[in-house]
Amino acid sequence: MGGVSGEVTMANPRADRVRAVAALARTSVRSRRGQFLVEGPQSVREAVRFTPERVRDVYLTVAAAQRYPEVTDATTTAGVYTHLCSPEVLAAMSEDAQGVLAVAQIVEPTAADLLAADHPPRLLAALAQVRDPGNAGTVIRAADAAGADGVLLSAGSVDVHNPKVVRSTAGSLFHLPVVTEVDLAEMAGTARDRGLQVLAADGGGEQDLYRADLARPTLWLFGNEAHGLGAAERELADAVVRIPIHGRAESLNLAMAATVCLYSSARAQHTG
Amino acid sequence: MGGVSGEVTMANPRADRVRAVAALARTSVRSRRGQFLVEGPQSVREAVRFTPERVRDVYLTVAAAQRYPEVTDATTTAGVYTHLCSPEVLAAMSEDAQGVLAVAQIVEPTAADLLAADHPPRLLAALAQVRDPGNAGTVIRAADAAGADGVLLSAGSVDVHNPKVVRSTAGSLFHLPVVTEVDLAEMAGTARDRGLQVLAADGGGEQDLYRADLARPTLWLFGNEAHGLGAAERELADAVVRIPIHGRAESLNLAMAATVCLYSSARAQHTG
Repeated sequence: MGGVSGEVTMANPRADRVRAVAALARTSVRSRRGQFLVEGPQSVREAVRFTPERVRDVYLTVAAAQRYPEVTDATTTAGVYTHLCSPEVLAAMSEDAQGVLAVAQIVEPTAADLLAADHPPRLLAALAQVRDPGNAGTVIRAADAAGADGVLLSAGSVDVHNPKVVRSTAGSLFHLPVVTEVDLAEMAGTARDRGLQVLAADGGGEQDLYRADLARPTLWLFGNEAHGLGAAERELADAVVRIPIHGRAESLNLAMAATVCLYSSARAQHTG
Repeated sequence: MGGVSGEVTMANPRADRVRAVAALARTSVRSRRGQFLVEGPQSVREAVRFTPERVRDVYLTVAAAQRYPEVTDATTTAGVYTHLCSPEVLAAMSEDAQGVLAVAQIVEPTAADLLAADHPPRLLAALAQVRDPGNAGTVIRAADAAGADGVLLSAGSVDVHNPKVVRSTAGSLFHLPVVTEVDLAEMAGTARDRGLQVLAADGGGEQDLYRADLARPTLWLFGNEAHGLGAAERELADAVVRIPIHGRAESLNLAMAATVCLYSSARAQHTG
């Protein structure tokens, strides 16, 4: 059980502190307090390992502390404060925590950080008005796996600290910079100044993905899940790229399309 | 409005027929009656276009008939019987129909059909005990987009006629053969006899995806979303293939991994 003692110190699910943690499921509360929920053993472990300075508290049941020693090992190593809770307390804080929950501070990098002139990125993913939490989280996970240097979300996108987004990143939210409220036009301009090509992914694109030069540093632009990219957004790109459809499907969904594009770039950059 | 007249012929949400349609949300009822629900304008349109002989009835609200003329055009062209329903009737039949619903007959191809000696397939996806409806549907959609000749699901997988699976295929269920209750060992043997290589996708695989010879006809094996492929399943493959992870993500989820593998094959087969 790592450094966690066996005494349950929080047993009352109606305590003020329990309510205060549960309230972080709401956007307005997250925004006011500058904190968010991290649910489940995988996400909590990755938060503690990669951003320990942002993790305020970890809450665990005794059963979860025994079942997930990698979580308590990580909290002990990082010196993060851990509370052993009754199952009722954990359940009152979150329905999706599998016995492991953390409260972390919201600390967001800026687009300027990500596009610093002295260390330009090789691969970035930008999402225009992505609304579905699962899609946003999955694209962040795909970007991480593909070795991207960061993910940028435009104004009007889903709140990246929404618990559903955090869960669906499977820890990747703590692995790479995720910038929100981005002005896509400004960002595309800066990226181009730093030597990146800007590629928009769109089913109606004139450029075949297989023929694109993806070994170059690239910023990918992905559109809203229902409406794709608008004309003004496509205009920001050097080329609008189409994933070939070989069968009868009309399209791929956003998460699948982003995964294919980002992995095509990763492959070209790492083998090309 | 195509060939659909403006008279609502079904207005009572408590009618026996309405209950009988709604009951198809249940596995046991689908199995007994050999029918399933097709929900939403895109899925119904694709069912009517590609498998009109299996579509028994289409149910539409007046508003949906006006909003989705491509659906009524398709039913008119195919000569499929269409019922105009009150919104209450549609809502009683399904909560996810967006005003357009069909009842279709379950007609499943066999693995033998798909692996016929006189016309061997070039690309197949097989799923071992996939349980999540969204994952199963998304992989079927990815296989369709990648131009696969079919999808095979092992015994113990989610029911492919579960309404959530049908919806998440976005019409692809009607575009390519989907075989269920497959014996993976038998299928792998037959595929090999037909000249296909059998590749298992697994994060611990010894073969790098980027170095695999994917221009060859290929059967891909994908594992359960939580546990991956078992040792016995990996043994069925000629090679166990790993998608390189370039960042800090532990893995890709099943749908993402299958999309990357299938598109890597499509690209190699179509450009190689």
